[in-house]
Amino acid sequence: MPTGIHHIGVAVADLDESIRHYRNALGAQLVHRAVSDSEGLEAALLRIGTDEIELMSALRDDSPVGKFMAKRGPGLHHVAYGVKDIDLALAEARAAGLELIDAKPRIGLNGRRIAFVHPKSMGGVLTELVEA
Amino acid sequence: MPTGIHHIGVAVADLDESIRHYRNALGAQLVHRAVSDSEGLEAALLRIGTDEIELMSALRDDSPVGKFMAKRGPGLHHVAYGVKDIDLALAEARAAGLELIDAKPRIGLNGRRIAFVHPKSMGGVLTELVEA
Repeated sequence: MPTGIHHIGVAVADLDESIRHYRNALGAQLVHRAVSDSEGLEAALLRIGTDEIELMSALRDDSPVGKFMAKRGPGLHHVAYGVKDIDLALAEARAAGLELIDAKPRIGLNGRRIAFVHPKSMGGVLTELVEA
Repeated sequence: MPTGIHHIGVAVADLDESIRHYRNALGAQLVHRAVSDSEGLEAALLRIGTDEIELMSALRDDSPVGKFMAKRGPGLHHVAYGVKDIDLALAEARAAGLELIDAKPRIGLNGRRIAFVHPKSMGGVLTELVEA
């Protein structure tokens, strides 16, 4: 079971501008920035107090974040919960009847083991589990 | 400046069913439930580990959550950041050029002083400040 919210994912149009804005408006601190060619996105992890925000911009219109932006525009994209043991958490998720996007954990941009749960299993909320 | 993420707000179609689902899928615990006639919503505050999720269902189609549901369907609705002093936080938000929905703090369903920042000031993210 989750230990709490690990981070919130936000889709943005312009990553540099959004980093500046979160820094200016909320005192956020940039802690990591990375490109994923396979997912077609560039992401920045920012610390706000004790928590994290992941800002994501699409590198291609046909990437998952690109399609999200085309359909919904910029805004809240996903919520990630921290778990101690992601293999156990995925087994519990399966037992609870959740549909998993990632049947096995994979390595996220933050270097941690992650897996996504399908939004249709979570009332429209794209939900990530992160081994924290 | 925020001390971290205070909670995530999620718009849901059926509050009772969603509470059961979050309990079953994520081990969430119901801590508070309240109706706001003025906002046309019923909300449930759930604890997940060290954090909170606010599930919200519309009481009327023309309420803010009702309109959100009609436009976007169920899903992530807002993010709330905890602040120590909401009067100071609102002054800082104004100084940073943010457009406030609530010019002065008001009392939220959780009994705390809250204020909302307009999503157009936060890249499409409806953002709440909570005096925690």
